[in-house]
Amino acid sequence: MRFNFHVPTAVHFGIGVVKDLGKTVAPYGKKALLVYGGSSIKRNGVYDDVTASLKEAGIEWFELPGVEPNPKWNTVDKGWKICKENGVDYVIAAGGGSCVDCSKAIAAATAYDSSVLDLMRSHTPILKALPVFVVLTLAATGSEMDGGAVITDTINMEKGGVFGPALNPTVSFLDPSYTYTVPKHQTAAGTADIFAHTIENYFDTAKDTYFVDGVAESILRTCVKYGPIAVEDPTNEEARANLMWASPWAINGLIGCGRNEGWSLHPIQHPIGAWYDNTHGDGLAIIMPHWMRRVLNEDTLFKFVQYGVNVFGIDPALDPHEIAEKAIACTEDFLFNKLGIPRTLSEIGVDDKHLDEIAESAARGLARGFVPLTKEDVLEILKKAL
Amino acid sequence: MRFNFHVPTAVHFGIGVVKDLGKTVAPYGKKALLVYGGSSIKRNGVYDDVTASLKEAGIEWFELPGVEPNPKWNTVDKGWKICKENGVDYVIAAGGGSCVDCSKAIAAATAYDSSVLDLMRSHTPILKALPVFVVLTLAATGSEMDGGAVITDTINMEKGGVFGPALNPTVSFLDPSYTYTVPKHQTAAGTADIFAHTIENYFDTAKDTYFVDGVAESILRTCVKYGPIAVEDPTNEEARANLMWASPWAINGLIGCGRNEGWSLHPIQHPIGAWYDNTHGDGLAIIMPHWMRRVLNEDTLFKFVQYGVNVFGIDPALDPHEIAEKAIACTEDFLFNKLGIPRTLSEIGVDDKHLDEIAESAARGLARGFVPLTKEDVLEILKKAL
Repeated sequence: MRFNFHVPTAVHFGIGVVKDLGKTVAPYGKKALLVYGGSSIKRNGVYDDVTASLKEAGIEWFELPGVEPNPKWNTVDKGWKICKENGVDYVIAAGGGSCVDCSKAIAAATAYDSSVLDLMRSHTPILKALPVFVVLTLAATGSEMDGGAVITDTINMEKGGVFGPALNPTVSFLDPSYTYTVPKHQTAAGTADIFAHTIENYFDTAKDTYFVDGVAESILRTCVKYGPIAVEDPTNEEARANLMWASPWAINGLIGCGRNEGWSLHPIQHPIGAWYDNTHGDGLAIIMPHWMRRVLNEDTLFKFVQYGVNVFGIDPALDPHEIAEKAIACTEDFLFNKLGIPRTLSEIGVDDKHLDEIAESAARGLARGFVPLTKEDVLEILKKAL
Repeated sequence: MRFNFHVPTAVHFGIGVVKDLGKTVAPYGKKALLVYGGSSIKRNGVYDDVTASLKEAGIEWFELPGVEPNPKWNTVDKGWKICKENGVDYVIAAGGGSCVDCSKAIAAATAYDSSVLDLMRSHTPILKALPVFVVLTLAATGSEMDGGAVITDTINMEKGGVFGPALNPTVSFLDPSYTYTVPKHQTAAGTADIFAHTIENYFDTAKDTYFVDGVAESILRTCVKYGPIAVEDPTNEEARANLMWASPWAINGLIGCGRNEGWSLHPIQHPIGAWYDNTHGDGLAIIMPHWMRRVLNEDTLFKFVQYGVNVFGIDPALDPHEIAEKAIACTEDFLFNKLGIPRTLSEIGVDDKHLDEIAESAARGLARGFVPLTKEDVLEILKKAL
């Protein structure tokens, strides 16, 4: 077991924490760039809370609204230019993962004085960036507590990104009541995203990761228990709070400690997202059971058994193959019946026109994995998922 | 649910990581204070690894050897004077929790230019300190990843300490092979310490902490599974690595997120330790089942049931009272049979001469708790534990 772990982000968690935003950012300078997506933060009061706190602390801010769900490189460059022209001291993201990723990429582009496309393509590890503060409105990507930002390269039709220690947000404000107005399908997709991050860490060939496996199982059970409650009862504080706090731990490194392999679902969903701009969590959920059936074999059976018993409470006395089959069926029941996510890629607008490019791109990320997959393997998964 | 979480410490984990110590500390300055305990680090090669790495990076170091198991305020002040007189840039702890705590307190005393006794007695939150680096040799206190240091005030015969965000170590080096030479009884006591930190967080009146409860249960199961293996088979890497990585998570704040109450066992063990200088983990283990029986009632039953089912795999179909009794019996079996910790305070040198002072001091910390306890309650627990 060998790893580095470092999550310097401070988290302020609870209803009402954003009223301290202004005084928290003030020591870092007087000029902010406020990054957000559509009009939802203006409807649900988040924008008013954020700007009231900034005003009270005498912070001047510029705005970059309109960040799209899968943020594009040219949106990042727009933000970079605002920072440059106005001597902005730090970036404040008010939104979900796309907004956070866009803000981090702007912070890096500004520090490197470089288009994000060049940073992405050169795979520069990001060692400097403006400070980033996060006001989160969706439990999903975990970007509020990690050092990565996923950005779409619309020229190469690929999702890439920037990664490095300087991208960890300085402070993230997590108010579970800010997620009360997230629509049902976004709540479901966000939960699927948390679940997928955890699955991709958990399904690994390492057999000595007992402690962090237990942490991963707690995240998975949290999704299974509270995802459907949050979908049905959007203002349930207990459900929203547990999902919001479990989310960053699925991706901030802890449950990946000591593992051998790379991820298996994101490499497939990322090119789908680049071509079809679909909801990220939907794509991950739809692929997941097909991927599971493809990688289940005598060598990987142990992990499916552990998963079935510890996450879904399947009787450990059953035959291991039966446990594995039941575990995949429970996964489908959770994602498609309980969360209500569509079962097929066709339903989310994916057609068969770019399967080859998607499989080609995905296979580059799957040469190492829980079970290494070729382009043909991915094509098979994609066709079943269509 | 409302909390702040912030653990800025970077962790380098794995066999051989200490060879990077010198180049990791070098950017922080050229003068170190190296703090350690007895001669064990000279026998087991840790001292040689540390000093070889410092030499290679051209670091000059001063030494404070002889830190005692429950470090005393005057040992801290000795270190503070060395730092002051020599313009030391940072402190390196090479040892277990006592050594780490002593180093943190030295780092604070130097930054405040003040005896640690004054910092302790004034309850100053520690906002500045020299950087602290840790080379850990024992999985127990979790001090390698938190912002506290427990120090004995031999004048008032109390364990107190210094606490604050500046006390989080900058980088902690966790090499599980460094714990291979820890004697059986220290391995057992260290595991009991990790277990006790987790129990004290977990037994709480909050009922909406599902995610972090699952993390706590993973730490508890890790202690139950690997503690006895490490005692019997000291060079078992899987056991040592899981214990070493679970340990800081018992105390760094994560499993305490969203809880209502203060801790219940440390307030009793601390005055015992101040009077009798016993092994910390032994005292915690001996008190634990007596404390559990004292606080088990109709209101707290739910937590004992959850504990019994999720940590020891007790059949959830049994009567809840039976589950609770079995859970306490499993706890005793784990601590006293499997780990081999003595069952009574008498066996670890505690007599009945200071019970009154101990109970008086403990009760001050137990007015708020899972079940609030008075001086008389503590006396009853102590008499049963003798």
